[in-house]
This record gives sequence, C-alpha cells and structure tokens, in this order.
Amino acid sequence: MTEHTARFFGLGLGPGDPDYMTVRARKVLESADRLVHFCKRGRRGNARTIADAVVGQSPEREIALVYPVTTEIPADHPEYAAALNPFYEEAASRLLAEVEAGRTVAVLCEGDPFFYGSFMHLWWRLKDKVPTEVVPAVSGMSGAWTRAGAPITWGDDVLTVLPGTLSEAELTRRLSGTDAAVVMKLGRNLPKVRAAISAAGLLERAIYVERATMAQEKIVPLPDLPEDFDAPYFSLIIVPGQGRRV
Amino acid sequence: MTEHTARFFGLGLGPGDPDYMTVRARKVLESADRLVHFCKRGRRGNARTIADAVVGQSPEREIALVYPVTTEIPADHPEYAAALNPFYEEAASRLLAEVEAGRTVAVLCEGDPFFYGSFMHLWWRLKDKVPTEVVPAVSGMSGAWTRAGAPITWGDDVLTVLPGTLSEAELTRRLSGTDAAVVMKLGRNLPKVRAAISAAGLLERAIYVERATMAQEKIVPLPDLPEDFDAPYFSLIIVPGQGRRV
Repeated sequence: MTEHTARFFGLGLGPGDPDYMTVRARKVLESADRLVHFCKRGRRGNARTIADAVVGQSPEREIALVYPVTTEIPADHPEYAAALNPFYEEAASRLLAEVEAGRTVAVLCEGDPFFYGSFMHLWWRLKDKVPTEVVPAVSGMSGAWTRAGAPITWGDDVLTVLPGTLSEAELTRRLSGTDAAVVMKLGRNLPKVRAAISAAGLLERAIYVERATMAQEKIVPLPDLPEDFDAPYFSLIIVPGQGRRV
Repeated sequence: MTEHTARFFGLGLGPGDPDYMTVRARKVLESADRLVHFCKRGRRGNARTIADAVVGQSPEREIALVYPVTTEIPADHPEYAAALNPFYEEAASRLLAEVEAGRTVAVLCEGDPFFYGSFMHLWWRLKDKVPTEVVPAVSGMSGAWTRAGAPITWGDDVLTVLPGTLSEAELTRRLSGTDAAVVMKLGRNLPKVRAAISAAGLLERAIYVERATMAQEKIVPLPDLPEDFDAPYFSLIIVPGQGRRV
C-alpha cells in the first residue's frame, strides 16, 4: 500500500518511545538521504531526538529548520505569519532542490504528521511538485492516554480535541459540552486551561501528561499539579470519557 | 519504557497496513503464547487479518472471542448489555486462566486499544489482577486522513470525534460547531450522518473512507457516494479543518 517511489516523506515518529515507531517509519529513517527536523534556535528538535535510537549522528544527512519565532508572538498576530511564511517558503525551496538533485528527503515529525504538524506547511507547498508519502504515526495524545492508563472514549462518547490557545470562555463552553477531551498546546496557557476545566466541572477527571512514553515522562492528576507549574508547549491534558461499559 | 514483565497485552495493530504496526506490536505478536481476537460468528476479525502478515496460522495459539450480538441490537437497548456483559465476563475469566497457567496473552486490536476499543471491556476487568501492558497504535482515523491526503487539523482547529450512532439532531448540532470532524461507526447510520453533514453545511468538505491502508481501501468525496451505499461499520467520514496556513 505504501508508495515506494516517493522522494519526499512526512515521517511520523510517534510519541517518543522508539519502540512505538512504525515498521515503515524505521525503514524510511534508515534509508532516506536527508533527515529534516524543525527546532528552536540553539536546541535540537524533539522529533530528531526520537530518531536517535535508530540513526546516530550523521552530519551530512541532517537538515535543521530553525523556526524564526515560536511562542514569542501569538499565532494570530500578523507578525507571526509575516515571520513564518518566508521561513516555510525558503524551507520548501531548499527541500525541493534536494529532491531535484536526486536525493530522498524525510521530514521527521513528532506524533502524527497530519495532526497539527508543522510538516503540513511544507506538504501543501510541495505535494504537487514531488512524489510524496506521508507515514502516519501513533499520536502524542494516544501515547498520553495509554501511559496514563486512561481509555479515552467508551461506547458513544464524543471526543473533543482543543488547542489551549483558545479563550477561556471558548474552552469552558466546549469542555462543558463534551464527553471526553484532550487539550493540546499547553505551555503558558495552562492556568487558563485549568480554570476552564474547573468551570466545566471536569477537574477531578483531568490528567496532566508531559513527554508521554519518554524517559522524562510526567503524569499527574490535574488537581495535584502546583498552581505555578511550568508546562512545556508539548504537554497536554486528557479528560477520559465515562461512556458505556458492559 | 515498555513493561517487559506484562502477561496480558492490549495490542494495537494500527489501521491495516502491516507496515504501520509499531516495532513493539510486532515483537509482542511474535512472542505471545496466545493471540486473542474478537469476531462476528462465522467470520475472522479484522484485527486477526491485519496480523496475518506477521503470524501465520497457528491454531494452538489462537483464541477467537465471538460476539453474541453486534449490530442486531442497538447498543442502548437493555438486551445489548444483557448479552454483552456475560460475554465479557466469561472472556475475562478465560484469559485470566491462561495467564494463571503461565502463558502470555495478547488481545489483538484494530486501531488504538484505548480509543473505542472492545479490549477496554476486558482491560478494566483484568488490569488489577495481572500485569498488563497496552501498546498504542496508529488509529484508524489517522490511517484515513493520511491516505485521503487530508491533514485534519491546522493551527487552532478544534477536532470533534463523533459516533454515527448519535441522533441526527445531535450530530448536526455538534458538526455545526466544530472546525474539523471525524464520524466513526457508520454502517446503517450513513444516511442519517450524511443528512447531518449536509445540514451543517459540510458536505463539500466531507470524505468517505473505508478500510484505509488496506488492499480494499475506498476513498470517495461524500457528495459522490451513491445514496443507497452500503457502508461497513468500520468505515468513517472525515471533515478536514481549514485553519491557519502560513
């Protein structure tokens, strides 16, 4: 079913534990000529770190795409798009040149590439220009509910996935109307998200999960998390459903 | 990170393509003493079929759990629980006896075990009695949006996952208020789901996906699907989000 002629890959690596990579992801990781990852200035990207278990240091294969901004500018601010648009344009041109030079190029993705992935901004620029294959992966949220021992949906439960960037009122409204929830993109949004979860009456069921399936994994019932807790951007909160058990 | 001492496994096998199994799932599949799968009477289960690429016929390892009812009785009818409860109770006892006899037991799951999985009904009966490991997997919906070439969530999109078993009014209300959606459990619910998607103004964006990543994969824009189309229970409809592209 997979397209073995692809030259450009969106390579989902899963939530963190290298054993949770797919067989297909491992194969592409081992064979691609160029391994691309996104990162903050001065830091290694999470996706590249996940790949360490399979590929060692190989400087000639590596392409690091350094975000010009990350969370310093709100994503709905005009300056955000003004900074990110040329970044993705240039990155797409660079990867296109690699493919046109005869090399296979794999963009490493934490979690699943088509679920809030930065890769998508390269994908829509290149998909009609080069043979492309997207390798799906275990999502970060699946790693979280699995490690928390918390089945997320039972029976006819409705699941709502929300970015923590929404307003408190919007978060509260949507959390009040769902059976199960996942709140992504916490970081500095954590106090607002916690307030919304409390207002929706879900605090007792909520679980904070950080770096699920990785060595530094942290899983804490939300009511037990300190008020001043400093959550990374790639942490999330799950609210498991309580649907039909038979 | 994985618990190598587990005796009872919820083994997510992913959406169908055996290359989309995780490395961990392959290992457990190769080594478990008993391979358990759910099925309808007279049929092989989908999860067992996915495993064919890794494990051949080995009758002494196989345990088939045959559902007493599937979609003949609505899940909210009292007779449904009356039939399913003793089924899960007996299955749990049988698997517990296998573990107590010194064998490792893996329950094969299509998709991700903790996302609407039948396995969950065995898990909560056995998790405090035997060392348990749940292996997360690529979800069926991820296989669907990947193969459809349709990134599901961009920027701050809200994703709602809905079972097609909800009422048309409820489906319409929830679809009208979300950025992106996945409707699961179609089967005989397809006409109702289609009406709700139309009422919510989402028909043009909706994509019908059946057996994503498998040989018999079918991907059709929903407006092009015949009115009398006979959808299997394990098909779904995706409505990709249209959030921020930079």
